[in-house]
Amino acid sequence: MGYETIQFERDGAVGILTLNRPDAMNSLTFELVSEAGQALAVCENTTEIRTVVITGNGRAFCAGADVSTLRDRAGNDAGRFLHELADAAHEQMILPIRRMSKPVIAAVNGVAAGAGVGLALACDLCVAAEQTKFVLAYSNVAISPDCGTSFFLPRTVGPGKAMELYLFNEPITAQQAQSLGMVNRVVAASELLPTVRDMAQRLAQGPTMAYGQTKRLLDRSFTNGLADHLHDEALSVGNCAASGDHVEAVAAFLAKRSPQFKGR
Amino acid sequence: MGYETIQFERDGAVGILTLNRPDAMNSLTFELVSEAGQALAVCENTTEIRTVVITGNGRAFCAGADVSTLRDRAGNDAGRFLHELADAAHEQMILPIRRMSKPVIAAVNGVAAGAGVGLALACDLCVAAEQTKFVLAYSNVAISPDCGTSFFLPRTVGPGKAMELYLFNEPITAQQAQSLGMVNRVVAASELLPTVRDMAQRLAQGPTMAYGQTKRLLDRSFTNGLADHLHDEALSVGNCAASGDHVEAVAAFLAKRSPQFKGR
Amino acid sequence: MGYETIQFERDGAVGILTLNRPDAMNSLTFELVSEAGQALAVCENTTEIRTVVITGNGRAFCAGADVSTLRDRAGNDAGRFLHELADAAHEQMILPIRRMSKPVIAAVNGVAAGAGVGLALACDLCVAAEQTKFVLAYSNVAISPDCGTSFFLPRTVGPGKAMELYLFNEPITAQQAQSLGMVNRVVAASELLPTVRDMAQRLAQGPTMAYGQTKRLLDRSFTNGLADHLHDEALSVGNCAASGDHVEAVAAFLAKRSPQFKGR
Repeated sequence: MGYETIQFERDGAVGILTLNRPDAMNSLTFELVSEAGQALAVCENTTEIRTVVITGNGRAFCAGADVSTLRDRAGNDAGRFLHELADAAHEQMILPIRRMSKPVIAAVNGVAAGAGVGLALACDLCVAAEQTKFVLAYSNVAISPDCGTSFFLPRTVGPGKAMELYLFNEPITAQQAQSLGMVNRVVAASELLPTVRDMAQRLAQGPTMAYGQTKRLLDRSFTNGLADHLHDEALSVGNCAASGDHVEAVAAFLAKRSPQFKGR
Repeated sequence: MGYETIQFERDGAVGILTLNRPDAMNSLTFELVSEAGQALAVCENTTEIRTVVITGNGRAFCAGADVSTLRDRAGNDAGRFLHELADAAHEQMILPIRRMSKPVIAAVNGVAAGAGVGLALACDLCVAAEQTKFVLAYSNVAISPDCGTSFFLPRTVGPGKAMELYLFNEPITAQQAQSLGMVNRVVAASELLPTVRDMAQRLAQGPTMAYGQTKRLLDRSFTNGLADHLHDEALSVGNCAASGDHVEAVAAFLAKRSPQFKGR
Repeated sequence: MGYETIQFERDGAVGILTLNRPDAMNSLTFELVSEAGQALAVCENTTEIRTVVITGNGRAFCAGADVSTLRDRAGNDAGRFLHELADAAHEQMILPIRRMSKPVIAAVNGVAAGAGVGLALACDLCVAAEQTKFVLAYSNVAISPDCGTSFFLPRTVGPGKAMELYLFNEPITAQQAQSLGMVNRVVAASELLPTVRDMAQRLAQGPTMAYGQTKRLLDRSFTNGLADHLHDEALSVGNCAASGDHVEAVAAFLAKRSPQFKGR
């Protein structure tokens, strides 16, 4: 498939989605969102792909919605436009990432602003280049957050810190983001893609079905009551223990060798 | 309006509510709670007020419910009394603060104990004088928390730390509170009001409608499922983008000047 | 009652449940889970017991489900087995701990792995020996978490860190666990039981009814809306203020003496 605004590569069991509007800091347009949605659907539907990486070309990861497209709009027209763009990004990118039945890693190569922060936080793991900055930026243009930024951020950094970041738009360094729990690992820019590719290849050899079930469980932690959650956990662990990967894990453990997981 | 137990001042677009029972460490009585509720209603209903500050006179921010009034009560009478005082504080102070469609800043000038901790955490931002201490104090008098302390604290510091703070009542310094995410900024006592007034004036020039919508979104993060939350986000960003403040923000951005927000 | 796989001791107002399969690293079997459930029921139903301690004999706290019992199972049989073992552990241990109307302290004497992490996090307070390590271990054997690990962990360390710990199984030291909010206090191994016994005896002299009501409130923080939660808080504080312990607390406060709480 020929993409215009993204690149999509499959490297063995790893799908790599690269936002590719470097001159526009990979900001979101309807076209980019639609193409990203197509690539994510390929990742979900291709059994052989067992880990997904999302990154950006050029000096930015993603600068949020493309505000240049707002120049000729005003009032209700801008309202409709951003409402529809947010809906599209949510349906095509954010929900598919959280619903992806395999791990998704953000490789944050440069600035993440506005919706770019939501995109990074939507991923299961986030690895950032050490010069990277995160900035909410929404209130600078008098809008509220989109792409799940207002959903993921309070759960990750707490409600008070989330409001502070929204109100003041102070840039967060990669190191600060790590200590806030937004980023799992910070590496030198030159090491970012090698590190994430290694990590992704390693996870792509893992027990993918168990990863997917766990992702769903962790996502339900905040809204589930305990008794319901424990019920879900017992069902999931039963499903996983009936899988070929679990049989293999036990056999490998007893034989003192490394398991060969098939992801199911 | 003449208040007895609070002071209420309007400084341009900033409403400043000062708890004013310094000899009783600004502890909560029915009268104070009622007067605070009136002042908060003025803040909500006065369009020209676009940021609210809550602070205390004297050496305390707020020492919780006034226990001296419990001296002559015992058993069921004390139960009814504290139940009704909590209901009043919740209806008149805590809910109006969280529902306030503009930012509310706590300027914690001195000790916050019991309900005083809940009051501080209910605000959108919390700035504390560096000598300030936070102490739950409830279990010292054999009661459970009120004023949202048991709601805000686990979401901010995690469930295990919240239980520890409740069980042991160890005083938390302002610096510790900041590293726990309870406080956004710690300043010298002499700098507290100047700092908060500056911050409030700055926020009062901001895009108030977007602030209010974002406050609601952040508050729903823990209880919303993701798909519902994204739907709310898209609606909000559409509403905000249709606002005059967003039109102004885009115009100012293109003209490379600072925006002049009107809060709507 | 003669137990085979646990020890249960009552030391005054403190019940001490010790997992006692040291040669199997206190891993969970149906028998251990059932006996633990019986001991926890004794703790709940014995008014004189006002604090509960859970610890392990030998070098481990709890190594999760006993995988040696999985040797002769495969596929659906292993699935049914782990599903049922998880259900039993949830019903007999995790729910009774969270529903216990008195504080429960984990004294983590050695490694906590898999369900052992869930067991530690289910307790109200967690004190760990300084050499202790926590490791999720589930994905090593291609299963999803049980015993509430996927419930407590995101609420405590945030969603992104929780996923990282699940995917990579890196051992967490006691000190790291403390800075992540999973552990309240780290002490030398030789000091673990003395410290926890002192802490438990102290809490056992506390206002047990208020502790129990607060535990329920803190547990509802993530799923309750604010207005409902404030309603619950007002009811609870009214109940507590009508208790003998509150009457005693006020009397002791006025007489400048220490209160003598009876737990009701």
